[in-house]
Amino acid sequence: MPATYDHPRAALTVDCAVFGLDDDGLKVLLIQRGIEPFAGRWALPGGFVHLDETLEQAALRELREETGLERVFLEQLYTFGDPGRDPRERVVTVAYYALVRLGDHTVQAATDARSVAWFATDDLPALAFDHDAILAAALNRLQAKVRYQPIGFELLPPKFSLTQLQRLYETVLERPLDKRNFRKKALALGILQELDEVEQDVAHRAARLYRFDEAAYRQKLADGFNFEL
Amino acid sequence: MPATYDHPRAALTVDCAVFGLDDDGLKVLLIQRGIEPFAGRWALPGGFVHLDETLEQAALRELREETGLERVFLEQLYTFGDPGRDPRERVVTVAYYALVRLGDHTVQAATDARSVAWFATDDLPALAFDHDAILAAALNRLQAKVRYQPIGFELLPPKFSLTQLQRLYETVLERPLDKRNFRKKALALGILQELDEVEQDVAHRAARLYRFDEAAYRQKLADGFNFEL
Repeated sequence: MPATYDHPRAALTVDCAVFGLDDDGLKVLLIQRGIEPFAGRWALPGGFVHLDETLEQAALRELREETGLERVFLEQLYTFGDPGRDPRERVVTVAYYALVRLGDHTVQAATDARSVAWFATDDLPALAFDHDAILAAALNRLQAKVRYQPIGFELLPPKFSLTQLQRLYETVLERPLDKRNFRKKALALGILQELDEVEQDVAHRAARLYRFDEAAYRQKLADGFNFEL
Repeated sequence: MPATYDHPRAALTVDCAVFGLDDDGLKVLLIQRGIEPFAGRWALPGGFVHLDETLEQAALRELREETGLERVFLEQLYTFGDPGRDPRERVVTVAYYALVRLGDHTVQAATDARSVAWFATDDLPALAFDHDAILAAALNRLQAKVRYQPIGFELLPPKFSLTQLQRLYETVLERPLDKRNFRKKALALGILQELDEVEQDVAHRAARLYRFDEAAYRQKLADGFNFEL
């Protein structure tokens, strides 16, 4: 339905940087564009905001429509609005970042995405629009936030070993961490519940499994505790 | 100049939460709206984004036009876009927060602002739109960020005593800090330059003055240092 306004308006979109972790490292979900501009180029999933949905609903809808992803942890990242960032016209995009457990989700290209795939964050193709800048900002945010909020658990399976947890931090922060120090700090947080289970199907000695204790974390937050890892 | 589009579009605005510090505590700059909706109510300064300016340029322009403020430290905060946040139509606003040295700036209401004034953040009038939520988010961001980035110096005069610095942190964080610990941590950062000057015109014993050493800070950042206070 066409609409007329007194003054020209920017178009409004959302874009999502979705991160996942597997044995090879940190991955980001990209779609291959099926339409111009940048047809054939890889891009962050996203699209135009509808007038009757919130920005977060728009991000979740576009993710579902273009990649098949549902029920992801999503946070607003930053709004990119430089004139000229889209060759068609002024487009302002509200960027989100999302964290998923890679094994829990299968992805499937749909609507105007030609295909969809996980790419290693350290080996990316040239991206459409300013999506390289958006992705760099999302990686920075993830690196800054993982240390002060327990968002990293979103990337792990529900039950994990301390080695898996350390590997997550080493991968996101891009540097090795001292094993003894890391374990001591992680356990001292008091938000890891030790399970009566060990790893299955591993070649090495099976390690103890833990889970993130959300209730303990909320209680500690209320008591004025600062997460730091 | 009217414009017609295939689909209806949201209007795009910017809003600014500008903080300043004086002897009475933390202040925020509000304008009294001269026009509907919410005529007569206090609100954050802001307005519509022009198609040929960046979002940050729009925020700086609106601040200048509505309040006379210029050359402020400004960072993007969050984008608020719930349908219904503006009674007229769908309006998405990119919120910014700014920090100023109160003594350096005089403010002057203009354009569609009836008046402009500094309000104590702990004694605010009812605000227009969802500006109470935007202001709460800005305060949260300031509290979180002041500990991990040296942005607080933007609120202080160029030369300050350690007591002034501690008071800034106590005011922003809303809790008392141990004097000896705070001074030790602040000086250990290695980014405060001790000056050969003391306070002027004070009733108590004049304290040594310091300044934030931007060059030392940049060098330390490059060396992998993490600011924390």
